Amino acid sequence: MVEYNAPIRDYEFLYNEVLDAIPTAQRLGFVDFDAEFLSMLMEGWAEHTTEVWLPINQLGDIEGLKFEDGTIKMPQEFKDAYREGIEGGWMSTSCKPEHGGMGVPVFFQSVTWAEFGTAANMAMSVLPALSVGVYEVLTEHGDQELIDYFATNLASGEWSGTMCLTEPHAGTDLGIITTKAEPQEDGTYRVSGTKTFITYGEHDMTDNIVHLVLAKTPGAPESTKGITLFLVPKFLPAEWESGGVEALSQELMATHNGVTCSGSEEKMGLHASPTCVMNFDESIGWRVGELHEGMSLMFQMMNRERVATGMMGIGLAEIAYQNALAWARERRQGRDLKGMQDPNERADNILVHPDVRRMLLEAKVNNEGCRALAAWTGLLLDQMSSEDPEEAEYANALISLFTPIVKAHFTDLGCETASTCMQVMGGAGYCSEFGVEQFYRDVRISRIWEGTNGIQALDLTGRKITQNMGKNLRHLMWPLTEFIEENRDIPEMSEFNKPLHQGVRGLQHLTLLLIAEGQANPHFLAAGATDYCRYFGNILLAYMWARMARVALESVGDPFYDAKIASARFFFKRIFPETVGLAAKIQAGHKPMMEYPEAMM
Amino acid sequence: MVEYNAPIRDYEFLYNEVLDAIPTAQRLGFVDFDAEFLSMLMEGWAEHTTEVWLPINQLGDIEGLKFEDGTIKMPQEFKDAYREGIEGGWMSTSCKPEHGGMGVPVFFQSVTWAEFGTAANMAMSVLPALSVGVYEVLTEHGDQELIDYFATNLASGEWSGTMCLTEPHAGTDLGIITTKAEPQEDGTYRVSGTKTFITYGEHDMTDNIVHLVLAKTPGAPESTKGITLFLVPKFLPAEWESGGVEALSQELMATHNGVTCSGSEEKMGLHASPTCVMNFDESIGWRVGELHEGMSLMFQMMNRERVATGMMGIGLAEIAYQNALAWARERRQGRDLKGMQDPNERADNILVHPDVRRMLLEAKVNNEGCRALAAWTGLLLDQMSSEDPEEAEYANALISLFTPIVKAHFTDLGCETASTCMQVMGGAGYCSEFGVEQFYRDVRISRIWEGTNGIQALDLTGRKITQNMGKNLRHLMWPLTEFIEENRDIPEMSEFNKPLHQGVRGLQHLTLLLIAEGQANPHFLAAGATDYCRYFGNILLAYMWARMARVALESVGDPFYDAKIASARFFFKRIFPETVGLAAKIQAGHKPMMEYPEAMM
Repeated sequence: MVEYNAPIRDYEFLYNEVLDAIPTAQRLGFVDFDAEFLSMLMEGWAEHTTEVWLPINQLGDIEGLKFEDGTIKMPQEFKDAYREGIEGGWMSTSCKPEHGGMGVPVFFQSVTWAEFGTAANMAMSVLPALSVGVYEVLTEHGDQELIDYFATNLASGEWSGTMCLTEPHAGTDLGIITTKAEPQEDGTYRVSGTKTFITYGEHDMTDNIVHLVLAKTPGAPESTKGITLFLVPKFLPAEWESGGVEALSQELMATHNGVTCSGSEEKMGLHASPTCVMNFDESIGWRVGELHEGMSLMFQMMNRERVATGMMGIGLAEIAYQNALAWARERRQGRDLKGMQDPNERADNILVHPDVRRMLLEAKVNNEGCRALAAWTGLLLDQMSSEDPEEAEYANALISLFTPIVKAHFTDLGCETASTCMQVMGGAGYCSEFGVEQFYRDVRISRIWEGTNGIQALDLTGRKITQNMGKNLRHLMWPLTEFIEENRDIPEMSEFNKPLHQGVRGLQHLTLLLIAEGQANPHFLAAGATDYCRYFGNILLAYMWARMARVALESVGDPFYDAKIASARFFFKRIFPETVGLAAKIQAGHKPMMEYPEAMM
Repeated sequence: MVEYNAPIRDYEFLYNEVLDAIPTAQRLGFVDFDAEFLSMLMEGWAEHTTEVWLPINQLGDIEGLKFEDGTIKMPQEFKDAYREGIEGGWMSTSCKPEHGGMGVPVFFQSVTWAEFGTAANMAMSVLPALSVGVYEVLTEHGDQELIDYFATNLASGEWSGTMCLTEPHAGTDLGIITTKAEPQEDGTYRVSGTKTFITYGEHDMTDNIVHLVLAKTPGAPESTKGITLFLVPKFLPAEWESGGVEALSQELMATHNGVTCSGSEEKMGLHASPTCVMNFDESIGWRVGELHEGMSLMFQMMNRERVATGMMGIGLAEIAYQNALAWARERRQGRDLKGMQDPNERADNILVHPDVRRMLLEAKVNNEGCRALAAWTGLLLDQMSSEDPEEAEYANALISLFTPIVKAHFTDLGCETASTCMQVMGGAGYCSEFGVEQFYRDVRISRIWEGTNGIQALDLTGRKITQNMGKNLRHLMWPLTEFIEENRDIPEMSEFNKPLHQGVRGLQHLTLLLIAEGQANPHFLAAGATDYCRYFGNILLAYMWARMARVALESVGDPFYDAKIASARFFFKRIFPETVGLAAKIQAGHKPMMEYPEAMM
């Protein structure tokens, strides 16, 4: 029943007309990468996800995984689909050609790949996304022999990866983990401890699972400063006896490396994505990166996964929107309040009702605004690796700011949109048959994992804003202010440019307030963090809508561009005004929370 | 794992200190009803729901109902619990003593009973709530012989009731239903048609099911003006041959009355509440009320069910809050930003974090505000039957306004609160073990059924505001304006009274705008309806918080009352400011939606 049309046209507009992605990619070294190839890539991936992943998404929800005797069995259909993806080379688009990857820019993998993949089958998409994250940390920070041994199979998807951070008592607060890593004479470590909420910690889709595990070595400093990162495979190389893995074959031992799974959580959604309790019992591991520098390495992976999680918000909101719209186009209830539209039918189509349109347009316009910001974020991820230090600094600064916003605001909106789309469909939306209720359940985890959205807001407000003496924000404000200035005298732009300008002034005011008050009392800053993050998200979406409107105004009369202008208008009139209320809440400070008598909560 | 403490103390505060419910009830004829009896009643019901209903709530979710060969089998535990409720007399508290009911005021049944019941077991609570609704329509509008035959068993819960409105093509739009009722010579009707989304349309908890069915008689006018209401039992009286049911025994035929169930929807939540497709095939029915007046009778029941649905929002939000708070009190992550609180522990309790408190207080303060408005609404339901015509008119006017707000705003907030509480618990909130994810799924239907919240908003904006030349609103504005005036010079009240005053002025302005613009273009009014309904909801909650603060200020120093003042403060500082953004959206009118190119949606 569920339908999905991957938004290829929208990405072409963004990459080619709004962002000039191709010249940037070429300048960054992707010399053969052009618009035609990008479109082909998007079409190929859209076809794969729509024809291979989407048809088994509901089956994954209903059938789910089976946990039996320490092993997790995935539905056969998932195994077949995953295999097909490996054969098509779809699991490794951004991995290096030397490891068998496609070697295309990061923006394709981290944004477009992620959106189509999560929309079609969120549970499935998580597995390759994690593997690519492990691949990146490994290839950037691992010893060459580890890279040589593990990278190719991670890139192809033959082996998969995990992030092992959380412990039963330590989720947000990784400083208090107790997993231990004992150094051995052969240079390896014996890793022991229990990790929880490990996505795809155990499964039967790949021959090996490569865990990146945070652990503490003996005598390591307290807090996150004493954490080191280890690579711990489920199965060791068959020929391994001690020390490294240099020149060993890819054949694996038959018995596992002390890595066991003692359970998978029963959860509200994402039933085909295992959420494991993992036990490491003197498991052999190799250090990745320096001693006590595990957190920064893990954060590098985590930051990429945060963008990936933000894309889940868009992906599920988009497929929910498409199905709610398809429903609305067929459904007839009531009459247009201005007079019946279809006298030959028993009722008019529900699109005649302003409130139905409001819901659908909130969904559509937020999806498209987030997609625009995501596309820009993807391009900045590529620019971070620029050889031009100014470009790299600029990209790093913006990625620092955008990562928590992409994670938190996109997933907040994704959950709200899934709910709005369910509402459009009424009772049918609540029934399993129509698919939207699965999206509503699945997408909800995105507000929680990779750091709850409250943590994202604190990261933005308490760290990213003040970092480097406020340089991150200055890197944003320069082009933003310039854009506003450039458009000041263009009459067609004023309906977008004026509220944007006002919003940016508000953002500057609120930022100064939070920093000033936060110095005296950090509770003030923390109390406003969530509302500030949402305010900031709205400003970035406003900027993207103004930029898109500017481009679209060049092609008035073409339905695609006219719709973009109408969407921009809807955004500024019907979504952006929430910033006024957010500002008032931020200004209210911490006292309403912190002076509340705790015993009476 | 799930815990629940029914908020008895809060209701005592509301009924006894804020609303003077007891003198009102006594004046209305409940002469023996006093505060002590009310407390006993609340304690008894709290005990029953907590000890009998709550322990099987998760079982109901997991095991659900079984649809087999046209019958629905409920879990045995549900049947036992329901039976226990009948024996305790809990299914009929507001029904008349002459039918075996307790005969207590409506406010207990429709508010307190509903909250505790839905919190403990929403799926179970729906059944008696529907039966009482059928009982009320029957006893007020049915022929005496129908009352004599059906009322007692409906009141006790031995038989249950349903509302059969929706058809596959007609949910919101009942004017286009096709179910037919053919009059017979013996005064009965033969009812034929298919109804969908019929809650408890079929089940094995009671011996008989009494359906109230909307149908059209031959030659009836088009639209809702041609709809008549029929009582159609699943089983006819054993002795019935034709005509009425006068003096027949309660023994039932062994074969059904042409009433069959052809399926139950698979849905996201409420797994133990059957959602049936019901077929009536020349089923014998009796008319209830006059020909072609079915809609107004059904609306009477519907309006009560709308209040009941609003209570589901509070009930599930309350139990979600209590469990999130209990989790937060145990969970230790991170340190107080102002310096660690518990140096002997690995981490501080998460209540030191302003954002965690923000989430919990949003939940708590919205729950308590809604409960206060609900308690007032309950009392007004009793006052509607006052013999004093002025009191009845006043109560009717306010109930007209409050019903859509209680339904829409409470359930919107209920869904948001369940989500917020899940967020407090992080990954645990998403896992089934902790219960909150069930509340999140279960409560979501409340925004859809008994008329979607969009329909509620249109009812408020397009009908209730302008009805009787705006009299409904004047009945609210008089006491509201008087309250603001009374409190103007009380310094301790100014932090509540001033924003309330400002909000009320905003409401008046927006109301005039919608009426004025709506006369020229009804799309303007419809476009702002949802935001207006939420704005109005906030005003009513603001009024309740100001009233509660006024009472609490008399007892400063007592922790219960100090917390009420702190809650009122939180409401005005951290929740009420959303009204500013809502006002801007309403003022934006219909063009952003209605001028959007439909083909490009």
